[in-house]
Amino acid sequence: MSDFLVSMIAYLGVISGAISGVIEARRADMDLVGACAVAFITALGGGTLRDFCLGRFPVFWVEETGYGIISLVVALLAFYSTRFLGLTSKSMLIPDALGLGMFSILGAEYALQLNTSFFVATLMGIVTGVFGGVLRDVICNKIPLVFGKKTQLYATCSLVGSVVYILLIQLGFDQGFASFTGILLCVLMRLLAVRYNVRLPDPINL
Amino acid sequence: MSDFLVSMIAYLGVISGAISGVIEARRADMDLVGACAVAFITALGGGTLRDFCLGRFPVFWVEETGYGIISLVVALLAFYSTRFLGLTSKSMLIPDALGLGMFSILGAEYALQLNTSFFVATLMGIVTGVFGGVLRDVICNKIPLVFGKKTQLYATCSLVGSVVYILLIQLGFDQGFASFTGILLCVLMRLLAVRYNVRLPDPINL
Amino acid sequence: MSDFLVSMIAYLGVISGAISGVIEARRADMDLVGACAVAFITALGGGTLRDFCLGRFPVFWVEETGYGIISLVVALLAFYSTRFLGLTSKSMLIPDALGLGMFSILGAEYALQLNTSFFVATLMGIVTGVFGGVLRDVICNKIPLVFGKKTQLYATCSLVGSVVYILLIQLGFDQGFASFTGILLCVLMRLLAVRYNVRLPDPINL
Repeated sequence: MSDFLVSMIAYLGVISGAISGVIEARRADMDLVGACAVAFITALGGGTLRDFCLGRFPVFWVEETGYGIISLVVALLAFYSTRFLGLTSKSMLIPDALGLGMFSILGAEYALQLNTSFFVATLMGIVTGVFGGVLRDVICNKIPLVFGKKTQLYATCSLVGSVVYILLIQLGFDQGFASFTGILLCVLMRLLAVRYNVRLPDPINL
Repeated sequence: MSDFLVSMIAYLGVISGAISGVIEARRADMDLVGACAVAFITALGGGTLRDFCLGRFPVFWVEETGYGIISLVVALLAFYSTRFLGLTSKSMLIPDALGLGMFSILGAEYALQLNTSFFVATLMGIVTGVFGGVLRDVICNKIPLVFGKKTQLYATCSLVGSVVYILLIQLGFDQGFASFTGILLCVLMRLLAVRYNVRLPDPINL
Repeated sequence: MSDFLVSMIAYLGVISGAISGVIEARRADMDLVGACAVAFITALGGGTLRDFCLGRFPVFWVEETGYGIISLVVALLAFYSTRFLGLTSKSMLIPDALGLGMFSILGAEYALQLNTSFFVATLMGIVTGVFGGVLRDVICNKIPLVFGKKTQLYATCSLVGSVVYILLIQLGFDQGFASFTGILLCVLMRLLAVRYNVRLPDPINL
């Protein structure tokens, strides 16, 4: 994929993360500072945790300042605008899914660059894609949504996208093709899971 | 400012952080271990997160053992003493404001030393000043107080102090003057915000 | 102690951590993804936080992939098996105590290797032994169990084991003997604390 497209998708992911952060902050009755903090953490928290675990310092948003600035500008706009706040998780489904796919593949790629095992690379894909939302919910004092039984496949899509990306890279395909396929799979799987309400099976009901 | 004064203010910040940690731990019905943990995290958590993000390892309290020891000694005293526990957030307003100012300027300064952008330096000022309290509330299972609508300007004071400090440094003023002005502004703003109950405006009531 | 024994005890600690993670995840009504995440964090979160603070990167489970894999396999088995879920905290008392002892001594040892002060080494012992459970409870939206007034000595056992280990090393005893003694003390103290319901005293009742 072209660098331009990669950047576009990454920023789309940051924007949708920031908006979902503001929505949750509003629900928790926070002020502008809280909304900005939660937006930043939702948008950039997964990548930050990945950088911590892999030892990539300073973390990515210290060097690429654009991500942090965008997330705060979006938070500001969203907090003071009913137009943005009219956005529901439904209307953000597609940008959120794109962000999930993009971040997962980026996370797996950064891990592979450090020659980690495939297991760890997959894990880093999932952490990058999913943990922003987990940290958002922890700070808003809720059980993380993506860990709930009622949530349609989410981390699972990140897992599948990451694994496919890693496999394609190992098989010698070029990075553009592998990224595109991994992201596409993750996004499609997420959209289908929501459309058909697919959730992880749980045969034991306690 | 003299090194002695800097140290004095930093320790005052650690002490007021530790006491506020014990008070919250008491409210959450914790035992001595919980109180010590929450005191330590409140006093030193912001600086720790800053060091993580900037890649300053080992984190500051590993090298400067005094901070950790003081925070635990204060926790011990405060946990077992009604005198300390009589301290309310009101009576700790001034040491807490001094700590907020001091930590914010320290955080911004450490970031500048690593040649980060001014945006990131400001962010690190706020993280250092504010996130100890955020982590305290997360561990005590509450929505962070500083993100609440009823809280008078807090992170905002840290923001203003950090920005002014960075500007003065860039304009070529010496560090002592810049620190003093940044801390003073932050502290005054915080005290005035509490005195006149100034909060961030929120024109949208959801 | 032989390397084999050390590994055995470390894995036992990981397994009991993972199982306790799944039990809490079930209580919080999480799905398989949540159970795996909480199991991983409970089993490996303490050591991860220690590595963050000490600046040991990448963190241990990036290099020693076995720990992460075991914790997820256990999570999978435990989540789908009533047999594992029949396990109560009572029946896991001994493996959990062994894990607490082992992790505490490991944490203290890693700190000593970096020539930290004894204070920090003790702290790292406690963080490694105890913070997996703290993070588990934070993610499951509860006040950390080990900080509660009703919990029998837990972090205290980790403290005693770590201090004794560090003292013995300083006195020139060989590492095997020091480790064995530290772990044994921590485990015995924990088992006795549960048996006789020993808790930290709290003369002030608020």
